[in-house]
Amino acid sequence: MKIRRSGRLVDMTNYLIEHPRTLVPLTFFSERYGAAKSSISEDLGIIKQTFEQQGMGTLQTISGAAGGVKYFPLIMEEDAKDFIEKLCNQIADPDRLLPGGYLYLTDLLGNPNLVKEVGRLFASVFSERKIDVVMTVATKGIPLAYAAATHLNVPVVIVRSDPKVTEGSTVSINYVSGSTKRIQTMTLAKRSLKEGSKVLIIDDFMKAGGTVHGMISLLNEFQAEVVGIGVLVESEDIEERLVDEYVSLVRLSDVDVKEKRISVEEGNYFEFVE
Amino acid sequence: MKIRRSGRLVDMTNYLIEHPRTLVPLTFFSERYGAAKSSISEDLGIIKQTFEQQGMGTLQTISGAAGGVKYFPLIMEEDAKDFIEKLCNQIADPDRLLPGGYLYLTDLLGNPNLVKEVGRLFASVFSERKIDVVMTVATKGIPLAYAAATHLNVPVVIVRSDPKVTEGSTVSINYVSGSTKRIQTMTLAKRSLKEGSKVLIIDDFMKAGGTVHGMISLLNEFQAEVVGIGVLVESEDIEERLVDEYVSLVRLSDVDVKEKRISVEEGNYFEFVE
Repeated sequence: MKIRRSGRLVDMTNYLIEHPRTLVPLTFFSERYGAAKSSISEDLGIIKQTFEQQGMGTLQTISGAAGGVKYFPLIMEEDAKDFIEKLCNQIADPDRLLPGGYLYLTDLLGNPNLVKEVGRLFASVFSERKIDVVMTVATKGIPLAYAAATHLNVPVVIVRSDPKVTEGSTVSINYVSGSTKRIQTMTLAKRSLKEGSKVLIIDDFMKAGGTVHGMISLLNEFQAEVVGIGVLVESEDIEERLVDEYVSLVRLSDVDVKEKRISVEEGNYFEFVE
Repeated sequence: MKIRRSGRLVDMTNYLIEHPRTLVPLTFFSERYGAAKSSISEDLGIIKQTFEQQGMGTLQTISGAAGGVKYFPLIMEEDAKDFIEKLCNQIADPDRLLPGGYLYLTDLLGNPNLVKEVGRLFASVFSERKIDVVMTVATKGIPLAYAAATHLNVPVVIVRSDPKVTEGSTVSINYVSGSTKRIQTMTLAKRSLKEGSKVLIIDDFMKAGGTVHGMISLLNEFQAEVVGIGVLVESEDIEERLVDEYVSLVRLSDVDVKEKRISVEEGNYFEFVE
């Protein structure tokens, strides 16, 4: 079926967005539309230019017989700034305060658009790293991990506190929660992670970093390597942090239960943006 | 900034895909591109035609002062057939057999592309129903729920087996697991669901339906209404089912541990496709 340029642009845009970081041979498109490769190349030029202008990401063209085009989702720094600022304002709402100084964030994590955007920010900042898999711990980190993994086009593995019969054999470790100092267990299905995998850890909240530190120990059991850590919110009021390098979108600097005041600022995200 | 038609088509396609089921006024696009409304209307005609030809969904145009355009993600019946057939073949792999006749599906649920497609299938089949929120139970149903919710443009609420301090006050119910007959608890943050909400339940696996039945009881506590139930895999070998109307993509008809054979067939999905 012959399809005109206007229709091709619409369909190619959709196809590339649905297949991020996937090499699509030009012949695939030229057969799909009954169009010459030269026309497809022109189409891709228009798409690349628009993607870059609108700050959605970029196309990379690989030439040669095994060549093709790859879409890399990215976010522009100013869009990331706007997003994080808006997020800070939402988190600073005193209605979020729960007994014990905890914050209610369930509504934010339940918003698929917000979650998708967080995923895009992480995929953008870790875009240059070689990543085989995104790892998180159940439950709240799961949607963020999938959002990042979708943009990075890699699978997700989920660490749990309790082994399930439907996971087959598992590897478990004990770790000490950094803030409560309690010993806890973390478990991962043996089949879910290949030895030597390069892992991006994503989580919703980091206080002392005990959970993330536990995940790193667990990864050692798989001879896997941590290539990045991304958290939505970090809490600052900790003397001793168990994790050094991480990327955070938001930093919780102070929670005053009496005064009902939550102090929130931008995390260290932009220190990692080139 | 003036943008030519070709660039507009690329950007509008992306914008509409990123904002499903959202009313976008034509003035938004005409201001974004410095283009006349009549040109925008022509662009939308091209996009609508391509979306429908390629089976990605449709655009609905609402005329008048409060009008605009809405993108509805859908899937064509033949694409859904192909996807489900492939899924059946993957699930039938005897390597998935675990002790006790359980199946290892973690790799499939860890694949963001597969998960996204499952979400599109559910969003497509429930497209005509009025849905306020997608609900699931931790842990395995979460990615599927987000994938459906993203396409439906509604929030997700997650039911848990254990209340967390970060959720604030919760409502809990006890329920009997249909297959193991054990009494279990299910809990949902009070703040996470408005009274009278119309709820789509999404889960990965349904055997006797005890979990889904429990979720329905929990929803009664919120005076909320179930408007649909979607499960990835249903298991057939159950005498008494606790849930009547549901949509399944895949039906597990027999698991023979001795012979190492898993019998899988298409679920009832297409009975609900118009």
